[in-house]
Amino acid sequence: MPVLTVGSIAIDDIKTQTEEWSGLLGGSASYASVSASFFDRVNLVGIVGSDFPKQHIDLLQEREIDLRGLQIADGKTFHWAGQYEADMNRRRTLLTELNVFETFTPNLPEAYRTTPIILLGNISPSLQIHVLNQVESPEFVVADTMDLWITTARSELLELLKRVDLLVLNDSEARQLTEDDNLVRAGRKILDLGPKYVAIKKGEHGCLLLSRNEFFSCGAYPVEQLKDPTGAGDTFAGGLTGYLASLRRPVPTFADLKRAIVHGSMLASFCVESFSLERLKSLSRIELDQRYAFFRAMSHFDD
Amino acid sequence: MPVLTVGSIAIDDIKTQTEEWSGLLGGSASYASVSASFFDRVNLVGIVGSDFPKQHIDLLQEREIDLRGLQIADGKTFHWAGQYEADMNRRRTLLTELNVFETFTPNLPEAYRTTPIILLGNISPSLQIHVLNQVESPEFVVADTMDLWITTARSELLELLKRVDLLVLNDSEARQLTEDDNLVRAGRKILDLGPKYVAIKKGEHGCLLLSRNEFFSCGAYPVEQLKDPTGAGDTFAGGLTGYLASLRRPVPTFADLKRAIVHGSMLASFCVESFSLERLKSLSRIELDQRYAFFRAMSHFDD
Repeated sequence: MPVLTVGSIAIDDIKTQTEEWSGLLGGSASYASVSASFFDRVNLVGIVGSDFPKQHIDLLQEREIDLRGLQIADGKTFHWAGQYEADMNRRRTLLTELNVFETFTPNLPEAYRTTPIILLGNISPSLQIHVLNQVESPEFVVADTMDLWITTARSELLELLKRVDLLVLNDSEARQLTEDDNLVRAGRKILDLGPKYVAIKKGEHGCLLLSRNEFFSCGAYPVEQLKDPTGAGDTFAGGLTGYLASLRRPVPTFADLKRAIVHGSMLASFCVESFSLERLKSLSRIELDQRYAFFRAMSHFDD
Repeated sequence: MPVLTVGSIAIDDIKTQTEEWSGLLGGSASYASVSASFFDRVNLVGIVGSDFPKQHIDLLQEREIDLRGLQIADGKTFHWAGQYEADMNRRRTLLTELNVFETFTPNLPEAYRTTPIILLGNISPSLQIHVLNQVESPEFVVADTMDLWITTARSELLELLKRVDLLVLNDSEARQLTEDDNLVRAGRKILDLGPKYVAIKKGEHGCLLLSRNEFFSCGAYPVEQLKDPTGAGDTFAGGLTGYLASLRRPVPTFADLKRAIVHGSMLASFCVESFSLERLKSLSRIELDQRYAFFRAMSHFDD
């Protein structure tokens, strides 16, 4: 079943302690749609400026991502620059120029309106709701969010959560949203806000998945050559949503969601091994399946 | 097969943000031997003073721990006092009185010298070597250590590591010992120092187990009512060693070690639910097995 992904598409400039790159393809929708494309068809919704490089379009097309929902507007593409510290969990934003993204209204092409599986990437909750309102009868809705919206658009976010099946957010955001330091309790409080499932990302410590009655703790693949963590969360969300879509079941089971989480996590582990989408571009399904098998062996203890 | 455990036996005074207790049974050998006793016979080696309360002896005896190696010396028992911050990962030592522990020479009773499975709890590496020298032909040796010995007794520790099958230490200690921030690389460097296996504890984030060719990432049981983290590491080491002993195989497989790590981790998760050994005292084998089954379900994703 196809997946609809909406989010930002950006040109990134990234500095780490050892490398510096500019003009990279970035943004939540870019990472998420390429990641989801490993499993099923993807309908992308986003906006870029007239300066958007053809090579980035080419990359999305090579992944067979449907670009009918990609608006190309007069002006410049969203531009972000950031710098990572030696501890790559810490980064500083050097520049954020929203450009054409500032007035983005995600209107879906007619052909997208029956997409069954929806990934609402990290954009404002009111835009996420706007997208959802255009989908005829979504079967499973995944949403990502961030600290900014928890602070500045809390009521819209709470409105959105009533219509979301799986909310994905990181540990500090879960604590911020619920004002509870204990992640399991925080997760339960999030379920009380509407979602059937919540995935709480803990970076290098893996992630938790909760439903009302079930619990999954997913470790992290031990990445040895971490080059650039940008987009790891979006890649995770895209991969897990794409995997769910590929199951062709309107109502996934908790076991389906566990495996989806692991697939998303494996894709994220590849993503961070290089800058931008470089590693995902060269990744084969065989490499992905091998890493999944390795991860299974390192996580299971009683087969 | 019996397990020999050696380490400290202490009287602890512990303050948390909500409670304050004094005169508690503490020390690495107390936690480790009670934990190991869930699986097999335990030969305890340690020292206490003439002030040591009878109720603490009674507890050890109720667990059928062999106390022929427990020295009762004139003077006072090792006394430790500590205070936990709101973030229980942080604690302050308020008092350390070594007392009779200061001149402890762990001499094994004749009957202990053929014990096949050895747990060298956290005491100085030269005392750990002294114990090992008295064992006739140990089949599997587990050792714990701490930052103090890495700094002050590095050469003795390196000497010990050549004779250890499994080293257990925490993440900061692994980084300190190897001067490598990446835990997987740090683990491999520790294997180069002698041990066949290394278990790196990451507190609430679980632990890693490495051999030269295999890798296991163990999550942590989501403890909701953390009361007192004291002794969690010793309980973990004792539980895993006791479980290995109960398998009655001189050479455990990596799969055995995985399950041993999980059993140790489950015991540690019970330990921190109350002060001192209170929770372990009341713990039944059925409760332990139920938690193991829950943990299996929350960790496996592809059965």
